[in-house]
Amino acid sequence: MLIKVLGAAAGGGYPQWNCNGRMSKRARFKEPGCLPRTQSSLTVSANGKDWVLLNASPDLRQQINETPELWPEADGPMRQSPIKAVVLTNGDVDHIIGLVNLREGQPFSLYASDRVLATINSNSVFNILNPEKVERIELAIDEPTALSGAGVDLGLTIEAFDVPGKVALYLEDASKGDNFGTEKGDTIGLKVTETATGKSFFYIPGCAAVDGPLAERIRGSELIFLDGTLYTDDEMLVQGLMPKTGARMGHISMSGPDGSVAALEPLDIKRKVFVHINNSNPTLDDNSPERKAVEKAGWEVGFDGMEVRL
Amino acid sequence: MLIKVLGAAAGGGYPQWNCNGRMSKRARFKEPGCLPRTQSSLTVSANGKDWVLLNASPDLRQQINETPELWPEADGPMRQSPIKAVVLTNGDVDHIIGLVNLREGQPFSLYASDRVLATINSNSVFNILNPEKVERIELAIDEPTALSGAGVDLGLTIEAFDVPGKVALYLEDASKGDNFGTEKGDTIGLKVTETATGKSFFYIPGCAAVDGPLAERIRGSELIFLDGTLYTDDEMLVQGLMPKTGARMGHISMSGPDGSVAALEPLDIKRKVFVHINNSNPTLDDNSPERKAVEKAGWEVGFDGMEVRL
Repeated sequence: MLIKVLGAAAGGGYPQWNCNGRMSKRARFKEPGCLPRTQSSLTVSANGKDWVLLNASPDLRQQINETPELWPEADGPMRQSPIKAVVLTNGDVDHIIGLVNLREGQPFSLYASDRVLATINSNSVFNILNPEKVERIELAIDEPTALSGAGVDLGLTIEAFDVPGKVALYLEDASKGDNFGTEKGDTIGLKVTETATGKSFFYIPGCAAVDGPLAERIRGSELIFLDGTLYTDDEMLVQGLMPKTGARMGHISMSGPDGSVAALEPLDIKRKVFVHINNSNPTLDDNSPERKAVEKAGWEVGFDGMEVRL
Repeated sequence: MLIKVLGAAAGGGYPQWNCNGRMSKRARFKEPGCLPRTQSSLTVSANGKDWVLLNASPDLRQQINETPELWPEADGPMRQSPIKAVVLTNGDVDHIIGLVNLREGQPFSLYASDRVLATINSNSVFNILNPEKVERIELAIDEPTALSGAGVDLGLTIEAFDVPGKVALYLEDASKGDNFGTEKGDTIGLKVTETATGKSFFYIPGCAAVDGPLAERIRGSELIFLDGTLYTDDEMLVQGLMPKTGARMGHISMSGPDGSVAALEPLDIKRKVFVHINNSNPTLDDNSPERKAVEKAGWEVGFDGMEVRL
């Protein structure tokens, strides 16, 4: 099983278009050690030929251009793509808008929870994906689903599960109280298993907390890609960027007693990679003390083009 | 007045993600003379400081990253952008999806026809633009509109006018006959005038035909950016890419007796630039006979980063 990080940044990307924060500025002016990153997506393949996208970011066209594995075969038919399926983990624009790039009548399967499919179905722009060629499949929660697309068995099984989170920003309903109308299915994690070998990894790019059930689920696993939005819960306020905490946005922080580094420390996970990293997060700087701290704790900070073989 | 082409390609871009056509392949493998191009958008400024986007393509994040004029001022506030307004000419995904990149509470004005605004309003993903900070303004047709945004007078006046065209692909209604439910306001052209000097240019990236009224409107003008989707009406069929003609897609071709080169020849227009160029169009090859032919007829083939000062 081959996994590639297409985009390791959170919504807005790194740098963010309208951000003059210290970190965005350093990436914009190409300061060494501050590698730019596109928005949040992974791709995975069992056979190295047929690929599944995990989330479809607004930067997908650029990501495909930079990833030869996702190009049509040079001697293939006039219209062809190795992308046979897309699985969505929530309805955030940084995870769904890339779907519109998969236009032009190409067949593939689209998997998402009932809640996220309802959002796709209610936004007419996604009808650019020919409904006769792109099957929209509701993901069962806590049950294995064998992935297929364009008539191909992809050799991968996913298990979707609910994780603590928040409904997408543009769907927040302030009248519904503290959770803004969040329901089950709004934020899911994925366990991806290579059907032939049983090898598996977790992909959880949006996650508000590592609670008991989630800790037990991921304990002892081989590999996890986890929500690395913020380093500290209040860093966007402290940097003067935006008056929102990570908790308000539905994202766990890396540091602190309730952070992901502490939460995963006792869980005996072989390889831990942060993805969905916000442009305010100081671990994006290769040489920052925060980067050294997470690396010392056994974590890697994801980057575009990162490859992991399992 | 300074105009920059952010993206000169039509929907899908050049190369197109799933296309093995001769032209896409040559761009994908970086053949000399076949310069890749992102999707359809221009930007214009009267003062070189505040900018207006004409259409917002799915590639907007990449386009901003490659255009220093659109970066926040290096010594500006924490959140800032020179983009003060966006004007849409139709509801095609290649012209509207980039709006989602302008997230994060940045104020600007969004101008579009009643028909296109209705599409924006009915797709919840666009609520990622904070409705309290992004004013949605209905464009009057055949009347001048002075552009402003984020409290700034932009020194530009636009006149929107209906042109022959077709409703966006994902909104086509086959039950409504040959025109798929197309109505006035679905495809507009823009005359952009620098208020202080009266200098003006035309921007018409989608256009099915140059009819009498359109010909009279653009006659004698200084500069036009025109729909250059196809070179010949049936080139996508001939190349085996897709069973649709330009006419079916609502786009005039460059060549032929009803084509744009012939139609504009007698109109005494000083500078003529093709934009919204499809990846099947042989004029994308700098050295093709078709490129030589349109250049001989006084046309330029637009490219990303092209600058025009008026």
